Formats: sequence, C-alpha cells, structure tokens
Amino acid sequence: MVEKSQLVSDEIALPALYSSVRQHSLQICESLEAEDFSCQPELYVSPPKWHLAHTTWFFEKFVLEKVLKNYQPYDPSFAYLFNSYYETAGDHLPRNKRGALTRPTIDAIREYRRYVDEQMETMERGWMDDDVRQLIITGLNHEQQHQELLLMDIKFILGTNPLYPSCLAGLCLNEMSAVPQRLPSITIDEGIYLIGHGTKEFAFDNESPRHRVHLDAFGLESDLVTNGEYLDFILDNGYKRVDLWLSDGWQWVNESRIRAPLYWHFVDGIWCCYDFDGLRPVDVNLPVMHVSQYEANAFARWKGMRLPTEFEWEAASPFIEWGTAWEHTASAYLPYPGYQRPEGTIGEYNAKFMSNQMVLRGASIATPPGHQRLTYRNFFTPDMRWQFSGIRLAKTL
Amino acid sequence: MVEKSQLVSDEIALPALYSSVRQHSLQICESLEAEDFSCQPELYVSPPKWHLAHTTWFFEKFVLEKVLKNYQPYDPSFAYLFNSYYETAGDHLPRNKRGALTRPTIDAIREYRRYVDEQMETMERGWMDDDVRQLIITGLNHEQQHQELLLMDIKFILGTNPLYPSCLAGLCLNEMSAVPQRLPSITIDEGIYLIGHGTKEFAFDNESPRHRVHLDAFGLESDLVTNGEYLDFILDNGYKRVDLWLSDGWQWVNESRIRAPLYWHFVDGIWCCYDFDGLRPVDVNLPVMHVSQYEANAFARWKGMRLPTEFEWEAASPFIEWGTAWEHTASAYLPYPGYQRPEGTIGEYNAKFMSNQMVLRGASIATPPGHQRLTYRNFFTPDMRWQFSGIRLAKTL
Amino acid sequence: MVEKSQLVSDEIALPALYSSVRQHSLQICESLEAEDFSCQPELYVSPPKWHLAHTTWFFEKFVLEKVLKNYQPYDPSFAYLFNSYYETAGDHLPRNKRGALTRPTIDAIREYRRYVDEQMETMERGWMDDDVRQLIITGLNHEQQHQELLLMDIKFILGTNPLYPSCLAGLCLNEMSAVPQRLPSITIDEGIYLIGHGTKEFAFDNESPRHRVHLDAFGLESDLVTNGEYLDFILDNGYKRVDLWLSDGWQWVNESRIRAPLYWHFVDGIWCCYDFDGLRPVDVNLPVMHVSQYEANAFARWKGMRLPTEFEWEAASPFIEWGTAWEHTASAYLPYPGYQRPEGTIGEYNAKFMSNQMVLRGASIATPPGHQRLTYRNFFTPDMRWQFSGIRLAKTL
Amino acid sequence: MVEKSQLVSDEIALPALYSSVRQHSLQICESLEAEDFSCQPELYVSPPKWHLAHTTWFFEKFVLEKVLKNYQPYDPSFAYLFNSYYETAGDHLPRNKRGALTRPTIDAIREYRRYVDEQMETMERGWMDDDVRQLIITGLNHEQQHQELLLMDIKFILGTNPLYPSCLAGLCLNEMSAVPQRLPSITIDEGIYLIGHGTKEFAFDNESPRHRVHLDAFGLESDLVTNGEYLDFILDNGYKRVDLWLSDGWQWVNESRIRAPLYWHFVDGIWCCYDFDGLRPVDVNLPVMHVSQYEANAFARWKGMRLPTEFEWEAASPFIEWGTAWEHTASAYLPYPGYQRPEGTIGEYNAKFMSNQMVLRGASIATPPGHQRLTYRNFFTPDMRWQFSGIRLAKTL
Repeated sequence: MVEKSQLVSDEIALPALYSSVRQHSLQICESLEAEDFSCQPELYVSPPKWHLAHTTWFFEKFVLEKVLKNYQPYDPSFAYLFNSYYETAGDHLPRNKRGALTRPTIDAIREYRRYVDEQMETMERGWMDDDVRQLIITGLNHEQQHQELLLMDIKFILGTNPLYPSCLAGLCLNEMSAVPQRLPSITIDEGIYLIGHGTKEFAFDNESPRHRVHLDAFGLESDLVTNGEYLDFILDNGYKRVDLWLSDGWQWVNESRIRAPLYWHFVDGIWCCYDFDGLRPVDVNLPVMHVSQYEANAFARWKGMRLPTEFEWEAASPFIEWGTAWEHTASAYLPYPGYQRPEGTIGEYNAKFMSNQMVLRGASIATPPGHQRLTYRNFFTPDMRWQFSGIRLAKTL
Repeated sequence: MVEKSQLVSDEIALPALYSSVRQHSLQICESLEAEDFSCQPELYVSPPKWHLAHTTWFFEKFVLEKVLKNYQPYDPSFAYLFNSYYETAGDHLPRNKRGALTRPTIDAIREYRRYVDEQMETMERGWMDDDVRQLIITGLNHEQQHQELLLMDIKFILGTNPLYPSCLAGLCLNEMSAVPQRLPSITIDEGIYLIGHGTKEFAFDNESPRHRVHLDAFGLESDLVTNGEYLDFILDNGYKRVDLWLSDGWQWVNESRIRAPLYWHFVDGIWCCYDFDGLRPVDVNLPVMHVSQYEANAFARWKGMRLPTEFEWEAASPFIEWGTAWEHTASAYLPYPGYQRPEGTIGEYNAKFMSNQMVLRGASIATPPGHQRLTYRNFFTPDMRWQFSGIRLAKTL
Repeated sequence: MVEKSQLVSDEIALPALYSSVRQHSLQICESLEAEDFSCQPELYVSPPKWHLAHTTWFFEKFVLEKVLKNYQPYDPSFAYLFNSYYETAGDHLPRNKRGALTRPTIDAIREYRRYVDEQMETMERGWMDDDVRQLIITGLNHEQQHQELLLMDIKFILGTNPLYPSCLAGLCLNEMSAVPQRLPSITIDEGIYLIGHGTKEFAFDNESPRHRVHLDAFGLESDLVTNGEYLDFILDNGYKRVDLWLSDGWQWVNESRIRAPLYWHFVDGIWCCYDFDGLRPVDVNLPVMHVSQYEANAFARWKGMRLPTEFEWEAASPFIEWGTAWEHTASAYLPYPGYQRPEGTIGEYNAKFMSNQMVLRGASIATPPGHQRLTYRNFFTPDMRWQFSGIRLAKTL
Repeated sequence: MVEKSQLVSDEIALPALYSSVRQHSLQICESLEAEDFSCQPELYVSPPKWHLAHTTWFFEKFVLEKVLKNYQPYDPSFAYLFNSYYETAGDHLPRNKRGALTRPTIDAIREYRRYVDEQMETMERGWMDDDVRQLIITGLNHEQQHQELLLMDIKFILGTNPLYPSCLAGLCLNEMSAVPQRLPSITIDEGIYLIGHGTKEFAFDNESPRHRVHLDAFGLESDLVTNGEYLDFILDNGYKRVDLWLSDGWQWVNESRIRAPLYWHFVDGIWCCYDFDGLRPVDVNLPVMHVSQYEANAFARWKGMRLPTEFEWEAASPFIEWGTAWEHTASAYLPYPGYQRPEGTIGEYNAKFMSNQMVLRGASIATPPGHQRLTYRNFFTPDMRWQFSGIRLAKTL
C-alpha cells in the first residue's frame, strides 16, 4: 500500500514523529467536555473518543500484533469496538452504534492510548526495520486523517447544537485568509500530463500508479469561491432553479430542505454561520465552506463554468495556491489505470470505497501539517458537506 | 388534572417532600459517568441528564412562571431544549435529537437544578396556597415517573453496551424476591366493581372518574411468571410458533429477530441476563422481566390462559401481592367513561396518548417509594420492553 | 367460529344463496377494465381480481378439500397466490406483491371461479351436512366481506387516478340519503346491557360470547355528521389545531399532509369529492365519509362531544337508524370476556388481529344486503379511511 | 442535442422510418395481456402502456406543439400523466404512481398513438424542414430507447411472476448465440485515442464532443463471460467472500440477499433461469446476463482481472464482436471534456443524470435494429440488473 519513503532512512526521526502525531490528536480534543466525546449525531459522524481509540487499535492490530511476540491486546473486546470497517479483521460494532458506547469512557481510552504508546516504545528493533517503519508511517498517516475527521466531527457536534457553543478545538486549524480581490485565472495547455504519486515519499495506494492523462486546454480560477459570491447564488434563487441541478442533487435539495451551506442560519435578517467560536455573521470575503458536490456543481453551472476534473486540478496545482478547503472536482473516485489493490486487510483501506463517491483535491485548514500532497485523493458521496470543502471553478477553452 | 389531596392540608410536609424527591433523582444517577448522562441509544430512551433537566423545567414552567412575578428563566433556550411534548407550551427539540445535546453538560444541568430549587424556596407564600401546592404535587409525581424512566434508560444504556458494565444505580431499586413455589390462584366473583381513583389522595387524571364495571367471574394467579417458566416457553419453540402470536406480534418478532426477553443473551450454552451488576446466569426463580405485551400474550396463550384486563386487575388487586414488575394487561389505554381532558397545557399530560397503547398495572422494583397506587395506569405500545414489565396470568371461569 | 344458525335447517335455500352471493361479486366488477382488476395502489388495497380469486380459494381450501375425496385443486400454485394471511395454511405471496400479479388474468380467474362453483355443485350430500353447511355459510359471509372490500378498493383505484373516471360499480351501493335537519338525540340510561351475538343466526366469532356490560347514562346523536358540519371543522382550522388531536393523530396529519377527508379536492375554490360518478362538488347534506378514526376523534373534540364506545353503540342501536357508514367508536378491537379462539386455520380469521385496531360499528352503503348485524364488529387501524366510514357523536350525561 | 445527420438530406426515408419505428413499439407488446400493460412491480420498472403513451407525448410536446400552429393536444391531462422527468416541461405524475394508472386503458392509449401519428402525417412541410427532421429523429431514437425498456420491463413483469408465464415478446429480441470455446483475447497498444461521436449521423449529446484520451496498453477478452463461468463463481462462494466486493456492493448483496443473477432460481437442485419462454435450466454456453455492475466487478476480481473503462472499450470496439449484452465498464457516467448541456427542456434528456451512475457500452439483443453505435453510452446505477447486461473482462498489461 505504501512505497518505500525517504523517512525509512531517517531512523531517528520516526519515534519523534510518532510521539508528535499521537500527541496532536489529544490536543485537538483538549477543550472538549466528556459528553462531547461520546456523541454521534449522524451516522457519518463518529464520537471523538471513538477516533482516539480506533487510531490506537490500528497500531495494536497492524504493528504491535505483528512485531511483538505474544503481544497481549490491552482489552480483547476493543478489536470488536474499535475496528472501523476491516471485514477481514473480524466482526465489528455496527457503525450506527458508536454513539451508544458510553463505556469505555474517555478516561479509559486515554489510558488505552498510553498503554499502546508504551508498548510501541518497547519495540526497540522494530523502529529500525524497514517494513515495520512502513507500517508505522501508514498508521501515522491514518491517524492524521482521523485528526481532520476529529475536527469535522467536533464542529458538527457543537455546530448543530442549538446553543452553538464555542470551543478551542478551532485553534488546531491552520490559518485561513480572505480571498483577495480576484487574481487572474490561469490557463493550462492541451497535452499529456503525468498524474499520480511518483516519489519515494509516503502516499496512499489510491494515488498510484503514476500514469499519463491527456488534457484539453482549460482555464482555472486562482481563487476559491467566496461566501459573498455564494450569497449571490442564494439570492438569485439558486436553490430553487431546477435547471441548475443534477437530478440526484435536486432530489437531495428538496428532501433535505437545503437552502444554504451547512452551518449557515438566517438569524434576524442576517446570514450567520457557525465556526468553533460560535455563530457569527458570514464574512463575505472568506471562501465558502461546507458545501456538497451537488451545490458546487449547481453553483458552477449558475456561473456558466464547471468544476475541474481531478486530473486538471493536479496538472494545475503547482500554479495555484491551495490548502484552505478541499476542492470539489468533477471526477468520480475510481482506481487509476494499473492500480493493484494491496493484499490482506490493509487492502480494504481505500480500494473497496471506489464506487459512488466523488474526488476532492487539495487540503483544508483542518488538514494536519505535513499531511498535504498534490496527489492526495480525498473522497465523499456528493451529498456530504461536513468536510471542510470549497469550490474552485474551471472552464473549457 | 389532580383532585384536592390530603397533602394540601399538611403544609409542613410538602417542602420536605419536594427536597427529598428532587434529591432522589440525583441519587439514582450518582454513579454514572459523564458520557452515560448524554446518550440516546434508541428513540424511546432519553439521556439521563435530559430527564434531570426536563423535570426541572417542569417546575419552572408550571410553578415558578405562574407563581413568581417577573420570574426570569434560568436560560431562555431551556424551554426549547427540555420541553418534552407539550405542543401548547411552544416549539421543542425533536425527540430524536436529545442524544445530540452534549451541551449543556451534566454539570451545567446540576447547576440548573440548584437554581430552580432555590427559586422554589423563595416562593414562601406559594407553599401555603392550595392551587400552588397542587401544582407542586403534580411536579413531584411527574419527577417520580421520570425516576423510573431514569432507571429504565440507564439500564438500557449500560445493558446494551457490549461491555455490560455494572453500575450502582441498581441500588435504587426496591427489593425483588424469588417467586415462591406456587401460591394458590384466587377467584373473583361476577359482579359490578368500582374502578378508578376515588380518594382525596393525588392521582393522575387518567385514573378518573371512578366508575362501575361489570366483570364476569375469573381466576388470577397469585404469582408472577418466573424466568424458569419463560425458559420453558423458549425451549418449547414459543418464538417460532405462529399460532401463539397476534399478527402484529408475529411481524415484530420476526423483523426484530426477537428470541428472548430484552437483556437475555445465550453465552456459551447458558442463558444470561444483564442487570445493573453485569451479565449473570438467569435465575429461574425470579419473575421474568422486560417482556413486551406481545410476548406476554403469546406466553399466556401457550399456557392456555390469558392476560387479565385492567379492570380485573384492579378488582383483584387487594388480594394479591404486586409491585415487583409492571403487569401487562389485555386492555387498551383509553379514557374512562366521563373522562374530561384538563384544560391548558397540562391537558397534554396523559390525554393525547390514549391511542395505540396498552395498559400495564401495578408497579415495579424501579417505581419510587410512595408512587404506587392500585388505580395507577401505566401504558406502552405492545412492542416495548425496556420498562420493568412482567406477566401475571388470568383465566375465565 | 360460527354457531349453528337457522340456515342449517333450511336445506333448499343454501345453494341458491351460494349462487346469488357468488354472482354478486362478479356484478360489482362488471364495468371494470382489465387494468383496473390488477392494480394495488397502496399496500392495504388489493387488486379486484385478487379478491375474486381469494374468495374462491377459500371455498377450495375450507370446503372442497375437506368434503370431496381426492379433490384436485384447480391450480396447485393458487394456494400460494391467493391465500391471504393464513399462516397455518402454508406459505403465501407477500401482500405487497399482489399488484405485480398480472397473471393469472381476470379471464383466467373467472374460469377458476366457474370451476370451483361447478365442483361445489357436485358436492351433493355436502349441502345437507350441518358441518359443511356451516363452512359454506362462513365462506359466503367471507365473500360478502370481500364484496365491500371490492367496492372500497375499486373506489380507491379510480378515485386516486388523476382522471377521476366514473364507473358503474357504484350501482352496487345501497342508497344513501341526505341527513335530515337534525333529529333529536336519544338518551340511554345507566344500566347493565347484554352485548354480543346471542341468536342462532350466523355471526363471526369475534361477536361472541354475549356478555354483560355496565354503561353509565349517555346521549347519542340520531344523525351522522354531515359534509357541511365537517366543512365547518376544516374552515375553523380543525386540521391545524394541535389541541384537538391525539398525539399519534397529529403526527399522522402532518406527515401525510392531511387536510380533508379522503377523495376531497379543492378545485378552483370549491371542495369537490370523488364518487363512482366522478369528481363533483361536496353535497353538504350528505353524511361525511372516508374519515379516519383520528379525524373522527378530533372532530368530536372540536364539537365538545366524543365518539361512543362500541358497547354504547350496540346498546343504542335498536333506537337509531344506521347502515349508511361504518361508525367510528372509541373502542379498541379486543376479545370479549370468555372469547375462545377457534381451533385450526379458521382461528386466524379474526383473533390474531386483536391489537392496534379500533372498532367500527353498523354497516355502510357498500355492505352487501343481508350482511348487516347489530353485533357486527368491523375494525381498522385509526389512520385508515378508504372504508366507507362516518361519524356519530355521543356525550356523557 | 443532435448534430445534423445524413438522414436530413434523405427526405423520403424519414416518414417511412417514423412509421416503422412507431409500429415496432406496438409489435413488441402484441402478445401482452391487458393487465401486463399496467403493472409497475418496482419503482424503476414502468408499465408497458406508459412507455407507449410517453413516447407519443414526446412527439406531441417536442414536434407537434412546435410545428403545428394551434395544435390541440389529444388530452390536456396527458402532459401530466406521461411526462417522465422533464421538470421544465411542467408538473408530472410522480414516478411511483405509474402503476396505479389503470386509466387510460391500453385501448385508449392505442387510440392516442393513432391520433398523434395522424397529426404527424398532416405536418407536410415539417418533414422537409431540417430542424423539424432533427426533432423527429430525436423522437425516434428516444422511442427506440423505450423499445429496449419495454423488453426489459415486460421481462421483469413476467419473470418475477411466480407462474413464470411465457410470452412472444421475446420474438422481438435479436439473436443470441453461444459463446465459442474461447477466442484469443486482443491487445491494444498504449496511445492517444479519439473517443466520442464524430460523424454526421445521429448521436445523443452525451457522446460528444469527440476528444483525445490517453490509454495505457491493455488486453480485452474477445468473448463475454458465460453462464458456466459465472456458475463457477457462485459455486466458489463468490457471493460470500467479502474480499471480492466493493463496500457498497457488499452491503447491496447482503441487504437484498442476492445469490445469483436476476431471474435465476435454484429449483430441485438445478439452476434455472427465466426467459420469455418460461423457466428453463441455465445454458452454460450462453453469455451470463442480468448481472449488476457490483456483480461484474466482483466476478472480475475473482478472475484476477478487471472491467474495461468505457474508453478502452470504445478504442477496442472495432476489433471485437459486441451487441449481445450491454457490457459493464469501470467508468462513471460523466460529461466528456467540453460537453455543453443543450438549452431548453431537451437539455434534461441526459445531462442531469450525470452522477452516481456507471457506463455500459455496446448494445444487447433487446436493442432495436439500427440503434447500435460504437460511441453509445448507456448508464445505470451499479445495483441495477434488469437491463440485458453482461461481462467482458480486461487486464492491464
């Protein structure tokens, strides 16, 4: 699943990286109340404490059990409770029951993390073995993905609470700045482009193999769509005009009574939006966030433009600034030509989700430092919007 | 909704009663973890902290707001969050969102309780006014109902957790003893019986008016059905024999894959059942508990007997021992002849639920002391079984 | 299931009765198009041809198979297709698949009816045997019930078609006349009344045993509620006032967006209603029809009155005119004291449905002649309204 | 939506083509019973008579209304009844209500077809106008799509009937022959390929624009997968091995209890399958048919191969024989680079469905003669299998 990365030759750095990544997960959650840790308001949201336990189980299952002879799991029931979706790793708790797990408590899970971290330390030779190092690097990248999920889920738990409580978790976000007054759009020429991961650095299996893609010439905006522009779409009845929407999107908008991005509320005549510091008036200069692919699509059509494909995005990515919001693309999440699903349980990591999802590219303010990559492929069904997602427009030339 | 009760003339006792009932709610929850307080594993289960807040709001809404001039609610949003179902008291949080309320935390709700209790104390003259006293007595009976719900919900939250954690909440249960080796059944003669509440003591509106019911002669078991007898039903394929079941019950059994009472698990060849002290082998001499009306009905048919009607039960109640488990009856929950729905919001308390539910009579080990009454009418849909419910058999003579 | 009836001694009449009842089913359907025969627009509606086949299978299964040695079923697959819900009679087609049965065609089913009718004729001695005669009488009463269902289902199939086609099936209805300008209401004294079937005539098992019921004094309207009165309820915002509704009813009204009786449409400023002769303006002097028990209940509460219990209805029935519309009662459908479920498959006829339904009394314009009875207990869930149901009000004195 | 095609210059042929295509729709349905015409056993199946009316409405709406001044629609209500999904053409009957439309009858719809065909004939100059001819050609291609849908829906209606009736509609299928004993697979070299429609012939908008695609070298089987090979997959527990399935596919298999292709039944130890001539033993030499994309995917993985992309398929299509079954591809249904959604109502034809669907390529035995095209893009959600779909395997070289 991962290629040999340069970290492998850097034997000293890995334990420090491990410690720092593991520490960061706890930091994100530092200011939560015990109740916040245990809540699953929607099927796709997981309780923060579940993330803290699941990422820990990942190291137990894929590193400690393989490296340490006679390793005793911290608690034999945890494999059932904290396996997410690895069918080949045994039976697991149905996803819709995560919020019912009041026990183990957050304190018990912190204890579990300490135990596993200590066991990892005991694994002296392991840290020098290339295969083990690859497993650890995978586990750390996995934990970083869950760090972004933690921020998504915490925001959802608090941001859909009628009290709109503020929370310091937002301090773990990267900085976001206002979109400048329109930088010129860029143009990419027709040609063959190499797409996909091609270095020794770590990357997920779904970013490979590197392969050739032919692209027609296209233009791409330098800036993300702002809240202000999106407000114009709302005021122009964008949510009511059937001609702007995909058929499935139109059904979604109507059944879910969607009238604005997630976390937006019309309060006393003013559009407000929830952020970790509470409900505040929408800042029209910031990039719009928490829109679904359906909304991004309809917005683009309203503008007379379109979303870029993930290949266009990757080809153009050296020329644009990105990293504020995951950018919706027009591409379905499918394997690259020549993709080989890894053997064993780890093969379930990405491959089995390659249907009914759309790719998002870039990274967001919630992506942990060091986890951004030009070739990164994030993916969600087109109705999801609790991820930190935004819109960049493209057009055919 | 309530008749003038004798407590009205007993001015000293009420503040002490108030203090003791309010205290008892906290006692039940004493050993819970913060996460336990905030969990709603099924739509019909409420988070324990929600009960603690809702019962407090009940005093704010129906006593303090009426008695204290210029009363300032502790938090204006709480009316929305903690109103259960009183449509005429304003908009309220949808029931399925109670478990998403991680805030206010349990600590904040304890603070809310203290505030309201203090405000109640300030209401000096109120405690001596007959109408106010009636409202307070209603509020206390309401809180006692939620004390039983607290025990039901805590048991559900812990008892469906795969870890089956033990918890001291069970200490708040009344004592339950083994069913003796068959006391003789009793016989009730044909005749006219007076049914319903007829004293000055407090009773809910649905227990009135007292009225005449003609009963044919019937027999009633002195003892509740035991776990042992119920086990025989299971072993005799009771859950597989369509001829024993009502049509709706048969559908329920099959769709919900019911094969035993709630909290029963077949572990390594032994039937075990969860109680507050964890998962333990079923004690065949204890009364069977946590069965639905459908199951009670099928069991009775298997025995060649039937469930008593609520009128039969009330007519026989002076002659039997009851109070261990709520006893399923064959009666639908409907208004008594001459029943008048009380005016105003309090009229929603019972009246609007008089459809699609069945009556249970008696009381259970989870009913708080002083809350039992011969005329009490509890009610649930026939598929519910998280209440402490049992079976007593009757037969036509 | 049936008591010995006087028809038993009347050996000549039964074959003629058989022939006439069987004929009447076909008559009801005479003017239908082939497509109408095969349609199931809602789960609770059955295709007319299914009724014609099911009632025929009933005679095959419960008469011919028992009486004729070596009886060969017309088609061995029909037992699967046309058994309705008799679990003990073998596997059957799921109810929601009846509308997918384009084959056998209506012509094939007419042929099936002819075959079975001819076989019945061959059963010479059978017609003189008391037990067989009882089975035949049951089969005929069963077919008469389906005749009313046929009219309900045909009306639904045509009346929910956007073309509102007219159809001669309505000719098979009994006459309905305008409600006079208020006859005085009647008063029934407190006392013990004998309720239930007590003669040798045929009656269904659920009407027995005859038993004593104590009733308080009550008043009962002589007339059914009219369309005009019901219109006043609508105009007074009856469907929007939560205080008038049972909790379940309120949910039903809102989820199903109910704003008027079934078949009512507001067309160009006029309330119209579908009958077999098309969509026509509502006649304010006719009894309101096709309302659910929830609506009947809310209407009664709006009037400051209530629905009668089924016992009150039966006690009063000799003094009122009835037979236009099935009258909603306040009684749940439950077994009478001493009721014994019949042995064998026929025991499924009524007994297993005694939960979650409400009783309707009387008869309607769609009830076939000779099928009316003071003790008849019809039953539906409280949200159903495709039966010919109306409202009669009562009050406690 | 369509490019100017060569048919435009061929003024004589079009009326004859019109007549022949219109006639063919009726021919397909010739042997149906009236009941068959009106049945919608699943949401995605439409009643045959609905197809006959909808295709007729298409000519009324998009040709007659535009060409004939003062054209009077045959029946003003038909626009509501027979508009499928064109939101910009006005309100329409919800899809799930098509099966409840017993009226208009099939006879009335045949009359409707005659009326519109006659009106088309009156349009003398219209047949010579290029724009009108384009509209007519579109209408005919539209009707040909519905001819295949008719065969799919008729097969479903009869093939899921427990009687498995045979029907002559199958005579309208093209011939299907046994798969030979393995022709060698073909190899396609890496390179840039032109994909999409590029001639003056009619094609749907979604096949344009023609554009360049880079392909890596790949191999493609000359033959479709046979029933025999698929049986091996079943016998090797293919439906039980989670590692073979996409996550969504695994959920679909389990929730829908899928164990074989649609129309397969295990009868007395023999796998049988329904075709228009009834239920017969599976012929192991015929191509497997009626499998979903999920099943095709899992089968390919089991074989150690994969599905081709739609671009690979099109690049290879001149070298293979196709036309027996629609061939599942690994491509999501998305717009081609530079695709412009047509203006107006016709823009809804294809564009709005470009999400959550997968492309199938080729044609099937149910595709009407003259409607096959190398660039044709058929599309369904990955769980659908009532289309005549099969499997061709590819591999990366």
